[in-house]
Amino acid sequence: MSPEGVAHRVGVDLGGTAIKAGAVSLEGEVLERRSIPAELDRGPEDLAERIAGLARELGCTDGLGLGVPGLLDRAAGVVITSANLHQIDGFALVDAIAGHLDLPPARVALENDANVAALGEAWAGAGREDPDFLMVTLGTGVGGGVVLDGEVVTGSGGLAGEVGHICVEPDGLLCGCGKRGCLETLASATAASKRAQAAGLPADLAEVNALASGGDAAAIELLMDVGRDLGRGLAAATVLLDLRVFVIGGGFGAALPLLRPGIEEGLCERAYGRSAEDYRILGATLGPDAGWIGAARVGLLRAQENDD
Amino acid sequence: MSPEGVAHRVGVDLGGTAIKAGAVSLEGEVLERRSIPAELDRGPEDLAERIAGLARELGCTDGLGLGVPGLLDRAAGVVITSANLHQIDGFALVDAIAGHLDLPPARVALENDANVAALGEAWAGAGREDPDFLMVTLGTGVGGGVVLDGEVVTGSGGLAGEVGHICVEPDGLLCGCGKRGCLETLASATAASKRAQAAGLPADLAEVNALASGGDAAAIELLMDVGRDLGRGLAAATVLLDLRVFVIGGGFGAALPLLRPGIEEGLCERAYGRSAEDYRILGATLGPDAGWIGAARVGLLRAQENDD
Repeated sequence: MSPEGVAHRVGVDLGGTAIKAGAVSLEGEVLERRSIPAELDRGPEDLAERIAGLARELGCTDGLGLGVPGLLDRAAGVVITSANLHQIDGFALVDAIAGHLDLPPARVALENDANVAALGEAWAGAGREDPDFLMVTLGTGVGGGVVLDGEVVTGSGGLAGEVGHICVEPDGLLCGCGKRGCLETLASATAASKRAQAAGLPADLAEVNALASGGDAAAIELLMDVGRDLGRGLAAATVLLDLRVFVIGGGFGAALPLLRPGIEEGLCERAYGRSAEDYRILGATLGPDAGWIGAARVGLLRAQENDD
Repeated sequence: MSPEGVAHRVGVDLGGTAIKAGAVSLEGEVLERRSIPAELDRGPEDLAERIAGLARELGCTDGLGLGVPGLLDRAAGVVITSANLHQIDGFALVDAIAGHLDLPPARVALENDANVAALGEAWAGAGREDPDFLMVTLGTGVGGGVVLDGEVVTGSGGLAGEVGHICVEPDGLLCGCGKRGCLETLASATAASKRAQAAGLPADLAEVNALASGGDAAAIELLMDVGRDLGRGLAAATVLLDLRVFVIGGGFGAALPLLRPGIEEGLCERAYGRSAEDYRILGATLGPDAGWIGAARVGLLRAQENDD
């Protein structure tokens, strides 16, 4: 019942460089936030101890949620494999954290990082008015989360929402995943930066965005082109699920006002029977808090399920 | 409580040429089935009367479900627009049927034809072991239905599951929907028949299938090619929703044994991190009964919701 005696939940977002955490009220209001370096090389036991310490400082008494990038065994509380956190592959992270906090393991809810970010925006951010939307995170890659009826679809194998790997150009560039023409090869921040350089623009997307905002034709065209490719990929979500609301986050999401016309064009080009007015393309509002807030929400939802 | 005193539900599947209907036990077992010509030119009032008559003959006392192709207003019980049943556009079909049966309109559940077929297979057919799957109907077009947790996803505008309009070839053939390279332009029965003729094979797909089963290299290659394009399109469902089970129905679905290797190849080509063993590609088992059985199920589910 702390901080300050308010009923709250604690969420933790574990990344390759930082551990972000915080306390949020049961209505989704941020009460307190922390960030510490991940320092993964200190090993998984040390990591679990530091996460438990953070949770304790944030007044965690009845459980927490934990967002982690990678493929998870939710039931066992184990990170099976994670590209950026290989130091914890196969480690029983949930048991270790629960042990330090004297909680039953069922009180530590584990979820994929992209899914918690989507759930954060669904609960307390840009998606809170919309039961159905697709969360799209434009960063080094393109992450995603499908939200239906206010809940994130995880899929039978836990791999749902990999919108960055929708095929946009069958004969396109080779993606890190081994396939060709994935959305990620065209519209991630990394891809957009390369495309900017190829067009004689700065590699820094904030500069490109500033140039475009100032009326630079080449910068405007670049963001239009990237947006169109993004829309072409997102059209698959419209066709399959009739999704019409998209929440765009991640660092490159800041360019949304200039990406939006292209996104709408791409969506209309590939999704039958809709026009630009059918879509609402929103900027994410929680920024770097989305992950830990969504993790707190997962913890709350799982605790309610367990109490049923 | 008839036929024969067994508790049952009635479902009706309205098509452009026939009205199929039947009674199914609460466990999904077919008790009785009927089919009458649609004769839509007799007008919507006459149609409603004949549907009510069929339902009465099948022992409908407490409600029924109705599958109709087209865009629906489920709450109002109105078919907004239907390409093949334009005679009932805008008609309050549910009110009319309910009136004839002396039932409250809420006891006549309206649902899209592709969605009821998917729900039929989910409840009593090929998908009954799998909470999550994609139903794909290969006919004149390619229809679909996304089933998650045993329920069909309808989407915010009721247009979910339009898998036939997933873009497979951005620069491909023009589709009836006005877009290019939709799955439907490559893998519907209509498209496959045209591709067969272009390859010097018979236009009749049953003949092509027979030739391929007998070892004809050109026929085998044709079905492999069509299957591969189908798999390429279905990959979007794997990437977005982690769907790994596909139920293939419709007339051309009979060629599944010879389409399957291509489908697996197309799925693996465009969906990252999976191999052919991750997928289960099943033939639909209810055939032409899927629609009305699923409609009966919708009626049952909505009645339970209303009773809550």
